[in-house]
Amino acid sequence: MDLFISGGTVVTMDAEFRVIEDGGVAIEGDVITEVGKRVDLEPKSRGVKKTIDARGTLVLPGMINGHAHAAMSLFRGVAEDHSLDDWLQRYIFPAEARNVTEDFVFWGTRLGVLEMLRGGVTTYADMYYFEDVVARVTKEAGMRGVLGETILDFPAPDHRTPAAALAYTQKYIERWKGDPLITPAVAPHSIYTLSTETLKSAGALARANGVPILMHIAEAPFESERSRAQHGGSPVNYLERIGLLGGDVVGAHCVWVDAMDIATLLRRGVGTVHNPSSNMKLASGVMPVVDLLTAGVPVGLATDSAASNNNQDLFQEMNVAAKLQKVTRMDPRALPARQVVEMATIGGARALHLDKQIGSLEVGKQADVVLIGTGATHSTPMYNVYSQLVYALNAHDVLTVVIAGKIVMEVRVMMTMDKPAILAKAHEYQRKVAASLIEPPPA
Amino acid sequence: MDLFISGGTVVTMDAEFRVIEDGGVAIEGDVITEVGKRVDLEPKSRGVKKTIDARGTLVLPGMINGHAHAAMSLFRGVAEDHSLDDWLQRYIFPAEARNVTEDFVFWGTRLGVLEMLRGGVTTYADMYYFEDVVARVTKEAGMRGVLGETILDFPAPDHRTPAAALAYTQKYIERWKGDPLITPAVAPHSIYTLSTETLKSAGALARANGVPILMHIAEAPFESERSRAQHGGSPVNYLERIGLLGGDVVGAHCVWVDAMDIATLLRRGVGTVHNPSSNMKLASGVMPVVDLLTAGVPVGLATDSAASNNNQDLFQEMNVAAKLQKVTRMDPRALPARQVVEMATIGGARALHLDKQIGSLEVGKQADVVLIGTGATHSTPMYNVYSQLVYALNAHDVLTVVIAGKIVMEVRVMMTMDKPAILAKAHEYQRKVAASLIEPPPA
Repeated sequence: MDLFISGGTVVTMDAEFRVIEDGGVAIEGDVITEVGKRVDLEPKSRGVKKTIDARGTLVLPGMINGHAHAAMSLFRGVAEDHSLDDWLQRYIFPAEARNVTEDFVFWGTRLGVLEMLRGGVTTYADMYYFEDVVARVTKEAGMRGVLGETILDFPAPDHRTPAAALAYTQKYIERWKGDPLITPAVAPHSIYTLSTETLKSAGALARANGVPILMHIAEAPFESERSRAQHGGSPVNYLERIGLLGGDVVGAHCVWVDAMDIATLLRRGVGTVHNPSSNMKLASGVMPVVDLLTAGVPVGLATDSAASNNNQDLFQEMNVAAKLQKVTRMDPRALPARQVVEMATIGGARALHLDKQIGSLEVGKQADVVLIGTGATHSTPMYNVYSQLVYALNAHDVLTVVIAGKIVMEVRVMMTMDKPAILAKAHEYQRKVAASLIEPPPA
Repeated sequence: MDLFISGGTVVTMDAEFRVIEDGGVAIEGDVITEVGKRVDLEPKSRGVKKTIDARGTLVLPGMINGHAHAAMSLFRGVAEDHSLDDWLQRYIFPAEARNVTEDFVFWGTRLGVLEMLRGGVTTYADMYYFEDVVARVTKEAGMRGVLGETILDFPAPDHRTPAAALAYTQKYIERWKGDPLITPAVAPHSIYTLSTETLKSAGALARANGVPILMHIAEAPFESERSRAQHGGSPVNYLERIGLLGGDVVGAHCVWVDAMDIATLLRRGVGTVHNPSSNMKLASGVMPVVDLLTAGVPVGLATDSAASNNNQDLFQEMNVAAKLQKVTRMDPRALPARQVVEMATIGGARALHLDKQIGSLEVGKQADVVLIGTGATHSTPMYNVYSQLVYALNAHDVLTVVIAGKIVMEVRVMMTMDKPAILAKAHEYQRKVAASLIEPPPA
């Protein structure tokens, strides 16, 4: 045994949803070798290299942020109160054109990854530019990532043409394929920013290399309307017809999907990802999470970017996701707490097609584990662990984070990242970005 | 000058929404005597008893939680996934009948007040039982409260009849009337738990004593339906007809109000309070906040109890309130961040009819001030203070809290409350409450 997480309430998120009081997790290398009662594991822990005292904590599988643009943390709060279309075309795309360089992505991703790790996220899916830099930063931080280079039909910060982006992506995939932490991916942005031809090329590239496809799907009403007008069907219907859907696709948002679309997503094995804060803030709509889960479609949970949220806090997404389904369906029983914790862990792993490796505390799985303190005023008393996780605890209660058997944060001290340096650079970029805006941030 | 808050970004929430960079607030006794630039106030601060270094913080008027049941913090998460009617009748009322004593209220209120203070709330409105105990705890903590004794037609934990509750309330009011921190109030629970006669008696008692009336109004669909069936009109319409509405009424929820109801609330000067988390979690509905604000009705913000939320965190309510209006109206411009901060400060003061005394940083007002740190990962960078307050910062970022010129928390250390003792008692009560439940909390 290399690492012994000893004591605490182990919330396994396995098929039986076992919750083990005074439990323990044994880790060898990057793998979980035992999960059980502390007293049963203790005798085998003699000579263990490191023991983490988990008493007074909830021990949870590392949380999974299924859709992010980590580097955009440098744009946190830069443009508010606009529709998705306006927000993208008038603010975000211009701000990106003026500011996004390799260096911006390097520091922005570090800021986003730092915030995610501090909030208990151990795996994230990312769609951005200079994705090779994103992969380097993520690997260096000891975090797990499914990282997709974004493909656009118009000039992006890193490439002027989709052909150049696809060529870069091929090399990027070759560099990272097989890495234990990084899963390279292809990220065709959306149907409203890409031609059918480019979508097909992106899909072909992903499939030739056996890597996932990350994409925004059916996010906003305008996307559905344009799809019907231009392609004679819903976004899901159009993507199905051009052969893009499959068991390697992760669809972020999927707000505007009907019963037929849901059947298609299920049949094709597409993973979907709910971004409640972003969908609410941009008034994109409410994903029919209950309908998707009832049908059997995997649904993960995500923050989207800090420019539309404005943070990378999966606890907040759990909280908001539960409440949003209840009020939208006018049914307080909709999406109970345990199901929400599932979306943030094993459900998110299913959505990313990584549920064989991560998402629960089970023997043989990757050792991605977070310890959450339960002693705060706002989390006292505690009657039910799932309720507490969704409705009372928050990102700041995360104490210790282990990824692939390696401690990346211990009692809130970062072991793999230089927090002061990252925050100092973020302040530098704040001045630069603010000076570059055509319209100042609203007062 | 007794207390000088020096430096920081002073977010006044005055009529001009002045934001003063490198500002300062001067305090004498319990009153704000100057608000301005640090350099202008510094010369007058010689010999000041205490200076608080506010550099790197946002200096905000104390936040106002317009509707709470503080003692219910001991029921945090005790019953989930039920409709309001079920939740009250099958879980909360029975749990209260078995557990709520003077001692329970004493410790439960301390827990709730502790959480509120640590999250920057300096004034709260409360509706519960043994309200004299609530007043004593609140006063001892140095917090401001509008505290209403709950009147019910069926036996309550403290009184078996409404007559007994009204008699108690008369004495309670006499004891606290004129206190600088405590505003005693009468809290007829709702139209669905009280007869017209008791409602009128509660109103008469409040008006004879010149104290406010706190009440749940138009919270859930069943309440509106019963009101139409039994009283031939909406809850607001019924309350108007029996003479209960006026400039001394604070209506919590007001979810099910139509244009006619809104006109009535405006004409009568009723203050209203939005409880977005509770309304979402219990699937009560969405308050038409934008319509009420547009009409000119004061709208405050609140947590409701920790049994339906499950916390006392007004930052979370700001965040959720903004997003909920946007997605409900499918308009991302709805309820911009500044308006939400207003609801949590001066708007909340208007709703509680206390805007002459609190809610903004202005000369002559009560010195209720909170300092919020801006140096965390999740709040870097910062482009706009209101955006940051609503979408990025959280309760844990509150560093220092001043109420009526007195420091109650300094850099997260409590000056007026014994946090370890309160949490220890909460754990005791957790065991007692769990053992008392007919149905165990859902797994």
